[in-house]
Amino acid sequence: MSDNEHLIQSEDPTHPANHICELCAKFYNLGWVTGTGGGTSIKNGDKIYIAPSGVQKELMKPTDMFVMDFNTKEYLRKPQTHKPSACTPLFLAAFNKGAGCCIHTHSQWAVLVTLLVERDFGKDACFEIEQLEQIKGIGKGRGKTGNLGYYDRLKIPIIENTPHEEDLTSSLEEAIEKYPDTYAVLVRRHGIYVWGDNVHKAKTQCESLDYIFQLAVEMKKLGLPWTNMK
Amino acid sequence: MSDNEHLIQSEDPTHPANHICELCAKFYNLGWVTGTGGGTSIKNGDKIYIAPSGVQKELMKPTDMFVMDFNTKEYLRKPQTHKPSACTPLFLAAFNKGAGCCIHTHSQWAVLVTLLVERDFGKDACFEIEQLEQIKGIGKGRGKTGNLGYYDRLKIPIIENTPHEEDLTSSLEEAIEKYPDTYAVLVRRHGIYVWGDNVHKAKTQCESLDYIFQLAVEMKKLGLPWTNMK
Amino acid sequence: MSDNEHLIQSEDPTHPANHICELCAKFYNLGWVTGTGGGTSIKNGDKIYIAPSGVQKELMKPTDMFVMDFNTKEYLRKPQTHKPSACTPLFLAAFNKGAGCCIHTHSQWAVLVTLLVERDFGKDACFEIEQLEQIKGIGKGRGKTGNLGYYDRLKIPIIENTPHEEDLTSSLEEAIEKYPDTYAVLVRRHGIYVWGDNVHKAKTQCESLDYIFQLAVEMKKLGLPWTNMK
Amino acid sequence: MSDNEHLIQSEDPTHPANHICELCAKFYNLGWVTGTGGGTSIKNGDKIYIAPSGVQKELMKPTDMFVMDFNTKEYLRKPQTHKPSACTPLFLAAFNKGAGCCIHTHSQWAVLVTLLVERDFGKDACFEIEQLEQIKGIGKGRGKTGNLGYYDRLKIPIIENTPHEEDLTSSLEEAIEKYPDTYAVLVRRHGIYVWGDNVHKAKTQCESLDYIFQLAVEMKKLGLPWTNMK
Repeated sequence: MSDNEHLIQSEDPTHPANHICELCAKFYNLGWVTGTGGGTSIKNGDKIYIAPSGVQKELMKPTDMFVMDFNTKEYLRKPQTHKPSACTPLFLAAFNKGAGCCIHTHSQWAVLVTLLVERDFGKDACFEIEQLEQIKGIGKGRGKTGNLGYYDRLKIPIIENTPHEEDLTSSLEEAIEKYPDTYAVLVRRHGIYVWGDNVHKAKTQCESLDYIFQLAVEMKKLGLPWTNMK
Repeated sequence: MSDNEHLIQSEDPTHPANHICELCAKFYNLGWVTGTGGGTSIKNGDKIYIAPSGVQKELMKPTDMFVMDFNTKEYLRKPQTHKPSACTPLFLAAFNKGAGCCIHTHSQWAVLVTLLVERDFGKDACFEIEQLEQIKGIGKGRGKTGNLGYYDRLKIPIIENTPHEEDLTSSLEEAIEKYPDTYAVLVRRHGIYVWGDNVHKAKTQCESLDYIFQLAVEMKKLGLPWTNMK
Repeated sequence: MSDNEHLIQSEDPTHPANHICELCAKFYNLGWVTGTGGGTSIKNGDKIYIAPSGVQKELMKPTDMFVMDFNTKEYLRKPQTHKPSACTPLFLAAFNKGAGCCIHTHSQWAVLVTLLVERDFGKDACFEIEQLEQIKGIGKGRGKTGNLGYYDRLKIPIIENTPHEEDLTSSLEEAIEKYPDTYAVLVRRHGIYVWGDNVHKAKTQCESLDYIFQLAVEMKKLGLPWTNMK
Repeated sequence: MSDNEHLIQSEDPTHPANHICELCAKFYNLGWVTGTGGGTSIKNGDKIYIAPSGVQKELMKPTDMFVMDFNTKEYLRKPQTHKPSACTPLFLAAFNKGAGCCIHTHSQWAVLVTLLVERDFGKDACFEIEQLEQIKGIGKGRGKTGNLGYYDRLKIPIIENTPHEEDLTSSLEEAIEKYPDTYAVLVRRHGIYVWGDNVHKAKTQCESLDYIFQLAVEMKKLGLPWTNMK
């Protein structure tokens, strides 16, 4: 595979190999990929670019990138010094639903929200909130035009964590079946997967959700309800 | 309109097209314009420069800028790839009151303050706080000289959110009528509009208010009152 | 005074005119000088360098600096576009006690601590805390060698705020009389003045105190006492 | 020792003398080494590089570095203007257990966790938490392959603080004896020591633990338990 170096060599900052590095450095500053956690993947045509496992996400270079063929699921490029991300099947699940970019964070706000939902609404409940302007940062759903409105209730499904990240795949796929309009799935005690048609939309949705989760946690601290406003 | 590129081309960092980009990058780091939310507009003579809708605010370039003629309200420059900001009529309302710059943020502290005021003082109440040094960062009001004093009570009106941002315009204008000295209007569950005679004053007032809102939220968590101190 | 430009022209980053700019940019990121609040002054021999009033502290340039003669208290350099800082007499009070640098912040943690002390211990109480490693970042007192130890109780006096900043001077001086070992005075609902023999010590003490105030506020939220541990 | 300048001169950013400076600047932004607190040491072969005592950690230069011979414990390089770090014997204790890098922070989350454990579980308890994905960022223990699993309970011993940092050494060594798999020891009211086989692992473990401590504090604020989930 040594002849595939051209796949990650580009002067264009929006080339996936460069873009993932820039995004992950930003996500590190947001506290989303602390301690080598989290990850990001971009689908470019039939090629998938994936940040490796176990690396310091703010220090990544394009040469750290894995590249996979979306059709054959074979690696076109596999850095010898790294292990492929255990999130790979989860990223693929999002790409199978038409995503162009998938972001996985360990955001503490996401984790706290999964704990608060379990305590207050039970293990089967999803996260629900309504009447926040930032909800308008989230799309209506795959194949639907435009974003959620201010009076739409935002619902994000939550799946239980598993010892091995790849074992989340089937429950993530089930959650997407059950909530076909969702662009995100929370993982209890773990974090969140957020995707979008392209990098711009995935990042906007990830930021909007993180903003909403942080607000939701602060609302709980202050005794303010998430839903059923008069 | 392609002949109007000169409107946004300048080496001067304080040129509105450059200044808005720099400000929005700073506001992103403050958490004010997460997920393409918020916006900023500068009035320069009879030209208004406006950040577009739905773009990542920390990544804007001068070429992303809309330019409007303040007198005719017609666009002098309209980037084909972007949509005009839905905040435009609200920015105009501020400019009609003599503002030279208007900042719109989705600050979480602003949102939480609108929720706490509603819960503790009712939907018709404005945000009120007193005896904080930072109140002196806010002007006395349009046409008045100098800033509020330490013993002046700060009052910021709150309007209800609407599904479409442009529909906020009439209630924002009413709030300005009712509170003619205000340089800011909070929008419930949404954020805030803050303006000033120029960029410096708008930014200073926006920062001072955000500081006060954050402090006010922390005071609530600690059981400390906002007003009626002995 | 136009012939005194040389006082603020230097390539040396530790020259007071440059150093104040760098420090204030850092303090802005720490939330200490939001909304043109706060300020910093350095005494270099018999010259005092002072950040002006009402400027955006993160954007200052050496040309913004006021320079005063410590002996005559006359300005050697006075930028025409700026007003002298209202903190000037307070900085002088610190320099009269041997300080080489004085930092004034509007830190929210400092403000909250003044409110919590008033509520829980009364208006005459000072802030007291003990058994935190970071207390060792604070000097024993003027003319004394070394820093406080882990078992020394840290005491920071609190003075009441006044409408005009310069009117704080006499109560600040009284507080220093009463607490001759203190390197800092809290101002209720306002912030803090911290000084040190030189820039390094003033900054270290200011950072250490801010750390302790933040910790103290979090301890209150969690019901943990500040003193009288077993 | 002046002939040993070559020990700290390198163009390679991963050279210990450069690496410590870069790490400490990052740690300053994370709030770990505020007010000259905390420190970092790297073992490179039989040479140990140590940040000095009492310096502003975000401003360090390679020339500030102490270099010690691990075998003889003698300084190969000793900057005349600085004092050796009081953490040195604690760093050595970690290196004696095979560490390649040791990080000492004054993280407020670490301090708060030591206070919460004491209040809720007593002075003899260690910090325990379970079922958080980020636990997988911590190694199983020296000489063991791989990291903790999601269902492994994380246990970090806590030692009592002492007036002089070097006096922590024996209790830190005892804690390592009692918890031979630990890569970290919390110090009550002070902070934490975290180490790893190399810089990458030490930093990853330090970030992962700090993330977990912050989450644990927020969980306490929200009434969420750390262990014994159904």
